[in-house]
Amino acid sequence: MIAEIVSVGTELLMGQIVNTDAQHIAKSLAPLGYICYYQVTVGDNAQRLTDAVRTALSRSDLVIFTGGLGPTDDDLTKETVAEALGLSCVPIPEQVEILKKQFRNAGWSMTPNNLKQASFPESAIILKNDHGTAPGCIMEADGKAAILLPGPPNELFPMFDHYVLPYLEKRGNCHLHSRLLKITGVGESRLAYEIRDLIASQTNPTIAPYAKTGEVELRLTAKCATDEEGEKLIAPVMQAILDHFGASVYSVDGETLESVCVKALETCSKTLSVFESGSGGLVCAALTSVPGHERFLKEGRVVCGHDAQISSADPYSQEYALALARAAKEASGTDLGLSVGPVRTMENPGSRMTGTAYIAIADGDSEKAVVLNMMGSPDRLRRICTLKAMDLLRRKCLNQPLDIDII
Amino acid sequence: MIAEIVSVGTELLMGQIVNTDAQHIAKSLAPLGYICYYQVTVGDNAQRLTDAVRTALSRSDLVIFTGGLGPTDDDLTKETVAEALGLSCVPIPEQVEILKKQFRNAGWSMTPNNLKQASFPESAIILKNDHGTAPGCIMEADGKAAILLPGPPNELFPMFDHYVLPYLEKRGNCHLHSRLLKITGVGESRLAYEIRDLIASQTNPTIAPYAKTGEVELRLTAKCATDEEGEKLIAPVMQAILDHFGASVYSVDGETLESVCVKALETCSKTLSVFESGSGGLVCAALTSVPGHERFLKEGRVVCGHDAQISSADPYSQEYALALARAAKEASGTDLGLSVGPVRTMENPGSRMTGTAYIAIADGDSEKAVVLNMMGSPDRLRRICTLKAMDLLRRKCLNQPLDIDII
Repeated sequence: MIAEIVSVGTELLMGQIVNTDAQHIAKSLAPLGYICYYQVTVGDNAQRLTDAVRTALSRSDLVIFTGGLGPTDDDLTKETVAEALGLSCVPIPEQVEILKKQFRNAGWSMTPNNLKQASFPESAIILKNDHGTAPGCIMEADGKAAILLPGPPNELFPMFDHYVLPYLEKRGNCHLHSRLLKITGVGESRLAYEIRDLIASQTNPTIAPYAKTGEVELRLTAKCATDEEGEKLIAPVMQAILDHFGASVYSVDGETLESVCVKALETCSKTLSVFESGSGGLVCAALTSVPGHERFLKEGRVVCGHDAQISSADPYSQEYALALARAAKEASGTDLGLSVGPVRTMENPGSRMTGTAYIAIADGDSEKAVVLNMMGSPDRLRRICTLKAMDLLRRKCLNQPLDIDII
Repeated sequence: MIAEIVSVGTELLMGQIVNTDAQHIAKSLAPLGYICYYQVTVGDNAQRLTDAVRTALSRSDLVIFTGGLGPTDDDLTKETVAEALGLSCVPIPEQVEILKKQFRNAGWSMTPNNLKQASFPESAIILKNDHGTAPGCIMEADGKAAILLPGPPNELFPMFDHYVLPYLEKRGNCHLHSRLLKITGVGESRLAYEIRDLIASQTNPTIAPYAKTGEVELRLTAKCATDEEGEKLIAPVMQAILDHFGASVYSVDGETLESVCVKALETCSKTLSVFESGSGGLVCAALTSVPGHERFLKEGRVVCGHDAQISSADPYSQEYALALARAAKEASGTDLGLSVGPVRTMENPGSRMTGTAYIAIADGDSEKAVVLNMMGSPDRLRRICTLKAMDLLRRKCLNQPLDIDII
């Protein structure tokens, strides 16, 4: 089946944002048996949008549109696609009610243009937007399908994953089962190199590595009749990866590191305080995003500059990071204290910025500091500190080796 | 002048990489007066590539191609574009020498297909590749120009910036000047509704609204001969927006809210401490990302659960948020204390989650709490708290009204 992605938005044509939506959709199409020949980006202009819609529907069986579903007059996608398919949009009572309720709950007043968001062809499948007000939809006519999704990635990604993928699987008549392994402490090129034979020899499941800041994801995807068969196909390959990378694999089901950390605190029944400098609050922001964190995380402190009351040692030293960890533990009387020292950065003319920081963890009996040698923008350095500090916490709670590889 | 970007590469269609090349090029075109109506991605297939090349050259004056310049048989861009322009590629002696030298220096042996990289139409302008082996080129014919660039971003970005931009500046004779206004405290649909007449009546500058979490951006773009003329065209429209939305406009030059906050602290010469609960560390993470924050931000604390030592009041109350703000101010003896109370969330079956939180600010003489009524995922609620707390801080420092509109 031939698929096409049409991205609608002047902000894409102007280069104000990068088109991560198209990639997110595209990478899911191929494994489901959809072949994509074209991706097109067009602005919020009636005539050019109409042309793009007609061209796409003439040469592809399935067209996925992103953007242009909002309440303003230049949001034209839904009306234009419906017209090209010979359908017309009318207010759907159920959607009008949902919209009214949303506005009532929030104490906002509705403006007339908001009603546009509740209008669809009567035959459309409406896709719930769990992260915004504009629902998506699927329109079918003459053997073609058009799927319309909102532009903001934080709305599109979950809508696509939860509601569109099952539709595509059914329509494409191809079932996939996958597992997402997450690994920190191993660089992507080293990882890909070490398991190159495994990657090359696998056809079912396939192994796809994705590099993220400070970590690598491996997606194992099996074509199968049922999820159970998929698990059986994936199991030996996953075991080979676990045997190779050991404790560096922190999740085999896509769970975030912060969620793994909160579960690890629960497993070892320990409470935690965090004093962080170089990560500026991001360790606490990550941990507090996990429901139930409040049973284990008792206090977080963002230490700005050199806090001489905590330690007179050089703030860019192992001693200072250890003192921060001890101070965190003592401040709230928790079982564990976790710290991130300040990042010492160095500009390297003609090359990327480098940075060094110490992270540390302390319980009553022992303490451990780890040095991080990092490379990249200040924001990237902060994110690596955050990730590695959480990894140190995870390893401590689960009694795993605390010597984290450098990035 | 009408421009178009054609990205060539199966890895883009498969979603293996995100198309940062297109964004890098697109964001440079508008300010130089090139209007981009379409971006197209096509694979390494002779027929579809030929179709895409012909379509692009028929509707655009300038077409920028990325990818498909390598030495392998499926790298077809150069030959296909040359043919569409009625040109033919021949080995260019100077380029053959450069290539031979590169291979000698690297100790590699050349294969016959490497010669492809040294072949161009005789009239082409050849663009040096300072970070790879495949040169780019510019072909001109019948008043059209085609610019061919290598796909890897680490080769394309510097080639575009150093060699293509000067060419485009010379060729384009229209200049654009734009300003990015950032507004918080007004929802996108309300904002678009309130200034719909202004948006509709404007042709130069144009006004484009973009919704973000908890804030809206308005881009004003003027066609002009010089930046000074552009500023003059934009000034009255910008003033009308400022008059309408007042202190809700926090930036007129695209500056981030956290950066505006650190500058505002400098303006009023005040130091700050932050106690945050519902935002879980994100206020500190934002403020500490701004260089120079350490002169004003003295301490941050992430308060987990109900801290009865700070206040015995209901944690979901105005009193508790005010007590947090006072405690922040007192803990480090700073001029200002800023707080975010916990978020009380409510599931609404069949509709989106809603949440309520109080934020507060205190100095020695006065204090103010504001209630936030929000809607969306837990992550969205945290981000709104973070943004609104910073907005409260900004308003306090700049002596602006502290009554923030609900979202």
